[in-house]
Amino acid sequence: MQIEDIETPAVLVDLNIVEANIQRTQLVFDQLGIGFRPHVKTHKIPWLARQQIQAGAIGIAAQKISEAEVFAAEDFDDILLCFNLLSPDKIARARSLAEKCQLSTVADNIEVVAALSEGFRGADLPLSVLVECDTGAGRCGVQSPEAARDLARTIAHAKGLRFGGLMTYPRPDTETRVEAFLAEARDLILQDIGTCPTISGGGSPSLSHAGRVKSLTEYRAGTYIYNDRSLIARGACLENDCALTVLATVVSRPTHDRAILDAGSKSLTSDLFGLTGHGLIRGYPGAEITALSEEHGHVDFRHCATRPTLGEKLRIIPNHVCPVSNLVDQVIFTRGEDVWRPWPVAARGCVI
Amino acid sequence: MQIEDIETPAVLVDLNIVEANIQRTQLVFDQLGIGFRPHVKTHKIPWLARQQIQAGAIGIAAQKISEAEVFAAEDFDDILLCFNLLSPDKIARARSLAEKCQLSTVADNIEVVAALSEGFRGADLPLSVLVECDTGAGRCGVQSPEAARDLARTIAHAKGLRFGGLMTYPRPDTETRVEAFLAEARDLILQDIGTCPTISGGGSPSLSHAGRVKSLTEYRAGTYIYNDRSLIARGACLENDCALTVLATVVSRPTHDRAILDAGSKSLTSDLFGLTGHGLIRGYPGAEITALSEEHGHVDFRHCATRPTLGEKLRIIPNHVCPVSNLVDQVIFTRGEDVWRPWPVAARGCVI
Repeated sequence: MQIEDIETPAVLVDLNIVEANIQRTQLVFDQLGIGFRPHVKTHKIPWLARQQIQAGAIGIAAQKISEAEVFAAEDFDDILLCFNLLSPDKIARARSLAEKCQLSTVADNIEVVAALSEGFRGADLPLSVLVECDTGAGRCGVQSPEAARDLARTIAHAKGLRFGGLMTYPRPDTETRVEAFLAEARDLILQDIGTCPTISGGGSPSLSHAGRVKSLTEYRAGTYIYNDRSLIARGACLENDCALTVLATVVSRPTHDRAILDAGSKSLTSDLFGLTGHGLIRGYPGAEITALSEEHGHVDFRHCATRPTLGEKLRIIPNHVCPVSNLVDQVIFTRGEDVWRPWPVAARGCVI
Repeated sequence: MQIEDIETPAVLVDLNIVEANIQRTQLVFDQLGIGFRPHVKTHKIPWLARQQIQAGAIGIAAQKISEAEVFAAEDFDDILLCFNLLSPDKIARARSLAEKCQLSTVADNIEVVAALSEGFRGADLPLSVLVECDTGAGRCGVQSPEAARDLARTIAHAKGLRFGGLMTYPRPDTETRVEAFLAEARDLILQDIGTCPTISGGGSPSLSHAGRVKSLTEYRAGTYIYNDRSLIARGACLENDCALTVLATVVSRPTHDRAILDAGSKSLTSDLFGLTGHGLIRGYPGAEITALSEEHGHVDFRHCATRPTLGEKLRIIPNHVCPVSNLVDQVIFTRGEDVWRPWPVAARGCVI
């Protein structure tokens, strides 16, 4: 089968580019001498995570307990769950997982620590809990190194738990600030409880600056495996480094300048990530995807030297690939222009 | 089970509100004396479409062939597929469907008509094809009443097809312009080929103005069954008319003003629809969902008199409900505060 023969819309993943992205990124961390922990939320496919591990990754990161369960069932044995767990049911699921693999998780408040401690009371092994630090991104995380120290102490003294270190989801290009927070928190914790095993940073946008945060012992990134238009815009990759494309057909040419594609927000998502337009159409650099309905992409070809014909299939690099993976039951693996096979997105829809 | 006991994030659908929305909307069209054809893309659930039919709807509208197949398998017998079909495989699937139910579709160009004609050559019954008209929304559609007449003539003379009428997806609040286009096209077509059976308009935002487009013989709308924040903003419904909410838990309270929910773009979608913020939190009218990560909702409670506690469950009316349905394998049916049962979203992920 040729790409031209694939029914649209479809999500294509070029394994040649995937493998290059895996190798290139692993090399960054091999050279830095710190662990690399790919975030599986980008692809949600155990087989791809296996390639990441084989290239040298120390384990994986997952965002939700149901996502972690999919990977644990495939024998991944080092999983960091980067999300506050609160409900007794989710924590019971985490305890079951921890009997199968080396699970660790995070907390940014004492209620989460208390709930985890309650759930892991009497477990064979204590659960490793890292303190999530808000180093400037304004999402979750304790607000100061002192608060990190206090929470680390609480974890260290909680039944069923052990203190695993620090974790942050940093704002890109703020490495100095991130390092100041983490180094100070680590030193306070070392003075207080004598150990701070892991310091985990991350993010694909800042991946090439990872070395500037000297205190890190490991790095998490997800998007780098596929790359996307947002990372091109940040200068973090080139168009040819983008492994995932959405294949769409021009189903209408209502005017000379306008084309309508059979891929809308149900394939590309509405994520803008600060960009204008809803994706990059390969081969038509002046084209702008001006609007998306759920099943229609509206494209303005006004600034293009050539325009596509009705029925032409186009390949679109999405603004943000991670939510695109979550929209399809399967992606289609290719190598360059050769179609290999469809592959299930095993952890699609794992919201819990 | 109480709503409080549901693991989050979860998509709740209140059937009391659904039934009121169905009845109220059907009444609009009963009083206008035109047919009402609900668009199933909003809920993607055959059982709900059955309620819509029982209330008096003449049939259903679907956006993609795979979506139509899910409903045809549940014995819906009048389906309008509002999307240009081009590929031989999709048209072969449409032909199979047309053997089971009364299928009609649309075209806005001669290539689609030629492909449909080729695919339906020798069929027992000709396929009804409506001409899609761009009456100002700038998506698909022929650009003038004359072009509609010309394409209607082409359909009427194509083997395997019959001309079914006109269809438009109008821009809200432009009824005068829409009516002028459709009435002129209809009259040209009547002069030319003597028949123009159906004239199908639509859209939940303009539903209460449907009567202003006098030439319509039927109306399509989807979102009205659930309603959402975009329709509240347009004045098309009230907060209490919103049947679908996303239940989320406050998993972090990093600062006095900020809360982080366990529902992000993977539950609420990034659709803005011209609004600020990513949804309406019931019971906290001043709260703003300022940003979404995939699994985190960032909420600013600065302008609220009260703030939620860690672990509190909140109910969010999404900006746009249709893509939310597409993100979950099941919704949870409730009646007021009583939980009934989970229900599968049978046509989730039908992109083809």
